[in-house]
Formats: sequence, structure tokens, C-alpha cells
Amino acid sequence: VNAPQKGTLLRSTEGAMPLAGRARDARSSAIREILKVTLRPEVISFAGGLPAPESFPVEALRQAFDKVLREVGPGSLQYSTTEGHPALREWVAARETARGVPTSADEVLIVSGSQQGLDLIGKAFIDEAAPVLVESPSYLGALQAFGQFAPTFRAIPTDADGLLPQALDAPLARGARFAYVMPNFQNPTGRTLTSERRIELAAAAREHDFWLVEDDPYGDLWYRAAPPPSLRAFAPERTLRLGSFSKILAPGLRIGFIVAPRPMIDVLIRLKQATDLHTATISQRAAFEVLSGNLMADHLPAVRQRYAAQCSVMLEALEQHFPRDAVWTRPLGGMFIWVELAGKVDTTALLARAIERQIAFVPGEPFFANDAPRNCLRLSFVTVPPESIRAGIATLGEVVRATTT
Amino acid sequence: VNAPQKGTLLRSTEGAMPLAGRARDARSSAIREILKVTLRPEVISFAGGLPAPESFPVEALRQAFDKVLREVGPGSLQYSTTEGHPALREWVAARETARGVPTSADEVLIVSGSQQGLDLIGKAFIDEAAPVLVESPSYLGALQAFGQFAPTFRAIPTDADGLLPQALDAPLARGARFAYVMPNFQNPTGRTLTSERRIELAAAAREHDFWLVEDDPYGDLWYRAAPPPSLRAFAPERTLRLGSFSKILAPGLRIGFIVAPRPMIDVLIRLKQATDLHTATISQRAAFEVLSGNLMADHLPAVRQRYAAQCSVMLEALEQHFPRDAVWTRPLGGMFIWVELAGKVDTTALLARAIERQIAFVPGEPFFANDAPRNCLRLSFVTVPPESIRAGIATLGEVVRATTT
Repeated sequence: VNAPQKGTLLRSTEGAMPLAGRARDARSSAIREILKVTLRPEVISFAGGLPAPESFPVEALRQAFDKVLREVGPGSLQYSTTEGHPALREWVAARETARGVPTSADEVLIVSGSQQGLDLIGKAFIDEAAPVLVESPSYLGALQAFGQFAPTFRAIPTDADGLLPQALDAPLARGARFAYVMPNFQNPTGRTLTSERRIELAAAAREHDFWLVEDDPYGDLWYRAAPPPSLRAFAPERTLRLGSFSKILAPGLRIGFIVAPRPMIDVLIRLKQATDLHTATISQRAAFEVLSGNLMADHLPAVRQRYAAQCSVMLEALEQHFPRDAVWTRPLGGMFIWVELAGKVDTTALLARAIERQIAFVPGEPFFANDAPRNCLRLSFVTVPPESIRAGIATLGEVVRATTT
Repeated sequence: VNAPQKGTLLRSTEGAMPLAGRARDARSSAIREILKVTLRPEVISFAGGLPAPESFPVEALRQAFDKVLREVGPGSLQYSTTEGHPALREWVAARETARGVPTSADEVLIVSGSQQGLDLIGKAFIDEAAPVLVESPSYLGALQAFGQFAPTFRAIPTDADGLLPQALDAPLARGARFAYVMPNFQNPTGRTLTSERRIELAAAAREHDFWLVEDDPYGDLWYRAAPPPSLRAFAPERTLRLGSFSKILAPGLRIGFIVAPRPMIDVLIRLKQATDLHTATISQRAAFEVLSGNLMADHLPAVRQRYAAQCSVMLEALEQHFPRDAVWTRPLGGMFIWVELAGKVDTTALLARAIERQIAFVPGEPFFANDAPRNCLRLSFVTVPPESIRAGIATLGEVVRATTT
């Protein structure tokens, strides 16, 4: 994300717009435009970051909205507190506690999806040009959210087990406000940070005095076994943990949460008040109704099984159709596989050719804050039926072979 | 709103928090703390900015959520486009058009309440120290939203008919990014800008090349006659018009909108994507169901009548119980009356004494960006029954007399 220019006038047919520097960064929109074609039903899209709609508990949510509007009535439609619906904060705190990190409700802030959590954290921490550590590659939405506040991104090198904590020496870590990390089934790579590295990362954060932003939207989507303990378990006093109900309930509700030490939550509450007052009262209440019922016990295992099966199908298809010199990740959960092609291929150019054959993916380039390699791509398998995964990867393999040889 | 310091470390028992300058501004929290006592049921609170819950169309919304979840199903719970639900954008555009300003759906952005609209506009326009024009006094939530981006606020003087356009000479207007104006039944004063002044303000904006941010949450809440044409009618090419469904439907849905020229909407869409991806899919669809039905034709007149009656009761009570040398506004719509007390009284100190007598209001000071007078207060009448308005104003009158004489 390039440092924006300040106070630039954007000339248009409608007149001059005296925009702030941050509003001038149009980096992501080229790929957004390309990917609009994936809305055509004949395109097999591995580009999505959307969960499978078949996994949404539609009927449970219908009953929940009905119950809340009948029983709570006008109170479910009134302004409410910025920090969130008390029962939902309690639910989050209880789940964190049950998973080994004692947490109270006043260490929880309900946000309008975890994307808003990233925006608020950017607001809270980032002065212009302040250093921020990010994995290389990292979640595009986080680079966009933080990029609004014009930090200096510093890339933490990674390998197959996630980021390399030993790389966090003084020159890299000095003055950093925080490190942004997605430890479980990372977007875009699908990688999981090992327990040992979580411990080492927490130690590095203490040594060099930076905070940890642990983004965990996919942690519940494990295939065979739960991931290691949360990063927050190893440094609760300096971790902001971001969670989402988008993958386990439904993204269209726009509800997520931040867990952090109370003084930090208090800062975030003030910022959230100025940002959108609070998250929709009725949606928070309806989400709580579903989460506190028995649905999740049946619902989550079914989602995990579906995603694990589709991941297997894609891995098999890659083995069969992709060149021998390509390398890809083997995720233990989540929604994404990351492919690195050999040679001088440019995956943004490759996307244009794939779309001619009705196949879409996301090129790797926008996921890097600095020094992006051109040979990577992200594949999602969760919204594509198995037969289309096989057919799509076969065609994509042909396009890759035609381009790289 | 004071210019924040950069990169300050906030020491706490939990460790150092390397906060950004914008996160250090705690200006509003003192009054928030005082006003927490207004949650006690024995307190008569004129402090609220909440609409009357009796006015919410609870049953219509219950049926709307039910219908959307039954008929649209998973699609109503999936991620959706940042710009908003197409049918809701169309509805807003049609209403603007019907009110005299031809508008297309792609000039509309759906936001998570108009507070989010203010945040996005701040992001789009405000570089640090950039000049921004605001009414004196102005809406506190706007000062907070813009304050996050550390502008230099310049106050536009006002009188009983709203802001004074002739005050917008070159020294005041030079370099201003925009003027933020609430032309109808302003929060906090209840004042309405005359047609003539709207025309003069639009001319000043063209002459000095600044944009207009027209915030209109209360425009539908007129008592006897609709307010003058929207500010946007006089300068559509340089106006961002903010609307809200919080006062005509229900605030707990958190849905509002921005109407602006398309290049500006495109900038705001990019920023909104980085801020929260999009506003909740299901709430947008449910709101559209209610708005597109016949409910509004019956519903709005009832809300107007209720608010007009309660405003009359408060005006009568002020006449009866407040000192002769106090001055207050006589709103033509909306939710607020603004009182200026004579002499050297400090209304923040007055609030402490009023709360001892179980009465609450909001002191005027936080509504001023610069040079706040200490003798003003805001009263809301919409959530208080008539008999409590009479009793509460009688008691408050005693407190005022005891303090000012």
C-alpha cells in the first residue's frame, strides 16, 4: 500500500474533490473490477472469500429475529450501548475462558464485523508513518483497513509454518505499534502458526514492546483437530484478539468482536462511538439467541466436514493437473489454498487468461504490503461443488501450463 | 476538540499502549459519565437524543425480517456489495427525485447509520489540520467523528434562523474542505435554516470552492409544514447529503445513507469497504420491506403529532417556570429546544445540581468546536411524557433560579 499524497485535488467532470491523502489510494479497485465478472453464473470462481451459504442457520435465525421482536419489542430497535449487547459480551467472554484464557465481559467489544475491528485498531494505534508489522503475505482487508491511516508496513518473513519469530530482531521490531497476525488457517495462505512460534512471537512482543493483533476468523473451521491455543493465551496483557461470527453463523449480520485488556477496550469504545455509535441492536440480540441455543453443537461439525471434503478434492485436483514445479499449501482448516508457480509467471496476467476460460482466482500480489512476488495465487474451495472444483482446476492447470512453458 | 498529540504512550496498570494521536482525545467522556445516571428510572431525562420507542413499527419489522428470511433465505445472510442493497438505493433515489432533486441509485451509498456517514466523510476529506467549517453550535457526534482526523475547526456564526452565510468571507472560507450543516431542526438548537440562507450558502460554497455536508436526520419530523428544499437542491454538484432511518423507522437497525455526485460516492465506497465491508444485508432488506409498504403514510404523521405536542408542552412549561431573562428556541420540528441562560452561569455545574434533583439535560459546551459559551443547555422532549415534562421543567426552573440569582 503506497503512502498516499496529501490534499490532492481529484479532478472530475463533476468538479474538484478536495480529498484527503488516505482517500486517494485506489490500489485494490483494479482487481475488484476484474473480479466482477465472477458474478456471471457460468464462471467457476475460486476467487471468493465467502462462506458456503448452505452452512447458514437460516431457520434458526428466522426464529431468533421473531422471538426478539415479539419478546423484547421496541427495546430491540432502540439505540444501545457502544460496547455491545451485555449477553453477547458475556457469551464471548465465557467462550474465551472455556478455551483457557480467563476473560470478563468488560474485556469484550462487539463490532460491526471484524473488518470494523481492524479499522478501529488502525485508528487507535496508527499515526502517519508509524511502523506496523504484518505477515508476508497478509490479509488484504487488513492492509486496506490499516492503509487508511498511512502506516509504514514492515513485512515479517514466513515459511510453511507461518511467520518466523526469530526474524523479529531489533531493526525489524523497533518502534512497531503492533504485529498483525492471523495464526489459524491464514488468509491467503491457509497456514497455521505452530505452538512454539506462538510462544516465541509473544516473547518477541514483550522484548521489543509491541502489541499483538490476533485475527482469528477461521479458528473454528478446523478439519481434524483444533488449532493450538490462541496467541492471546501467551501474552494476554498486550494482545487484541479479533473474532467473527461471519464464518460460524452468517456474514450478512456483520457482527464480530475484539477481546483485549480493559484500558484498551475503553479506548476502542470511544473510537467506536465516534465511528458508528454501536452495532445494530437487533442483530446482536438475534445472534445471541442462536449462539446460546444448542444449534452450534450440530452446526459447526457439519460446516467443518463440508470444508474439509472440498479442500481434499481441490488438493487432489491440483496434484493431478498442476505442473510438478508448482508448490501449494495443505491447510488444516479454513477456506484457502495458496499456490506458488515456478518461473517468471505473472498471476495478474494469468487471471485475464483464466477468465477467458471462465475460471477465476485472486492473484497473490495485493496480499503483500511490500515487495510482492508475482507468481502466487489464492484459491478458495468452499462455495464450489466438488465436480466444479475438479473441472475448474483441470482448466486452470491447462492455462498455467500454457503460460509457464 | 483539541488537536491531539501524536504517538503518546498512555500508561496504565496493564502496560503501555502506544496509541495514535487521535485515540487520546477523551473530551466527550466526562459528560458521558455524568449522564450514565440518567439510566435510573427515577430521573426525568431531557438529556436523551433517542426517538420515542412507541414510534417504532415493531410488528411491521417483525413481519419484514420473517418475510426476508423465508423468501430470500441464505442470500439475505451472505456478504453483499459495499454500496448497499440495490432496491434500498433505488428507494432513496426515488424519494430524493420526488422531492425535487433528480437522483439515480448510483448516487446513493447505504451506510451503517448516519454516524458512519460522518466518519467516512471525515476519512475522505480531512488531512491533519485541514480547515473544516461547522455551525456554532454543531452536532456533537459530527465534531467527534471529524475530530478523529484532527481538522482545524472554523466556526460559522449563527442566529435564530441558523448559520449566517454572509459570514463566509474569504478569511473564514479559504481552503475549507467542506461546511458541515444541519439545516432542519438542528441538533442541538432546533433551528431551521431559511430558504434564502440556503441559496446564499450554496453560492458561498461555489465562490470559495468548498463542499457542503448536509446532515438531515430530522427533516421528516416537521410539525406543521415541511421545511424548505434541501441544501442539495441548490448545489447538487458539491453536496453530500446524509439521511437516516433512525428517526422514521428505528435507530437499532443502524441504517442511513449518503447522496452525492457519483465520483464522490465511488471514493466513499472504497473507504467503506476498508471500514466495515458493507452494512448488514438482512437489516437493509428488512428496512426496504417496511419502507416500500404503506406503513410510512400512516406512521410518520403520528410521530410528527406526538413530537409537536410534547414540544408545545415543554415550551409552555419553560414560559411558566424559567427566568424572564433566559432565551430559548421555538422549533418547527425535530427533537430539541436550546436554552441560553442569562449571566455567568455554567451549565456543566448546573447539571450536577439538577441531577441531585433527579433532572438531567445536556450542557451546551460540547456542541461548540471553539470558544464555547458556558450558559447554554439542550433539552429533549420526545421520550418524556407530558406530565413529567411539566414537573421536570418546574424543578429545573427552580434549580436555574437558585443558581443564577
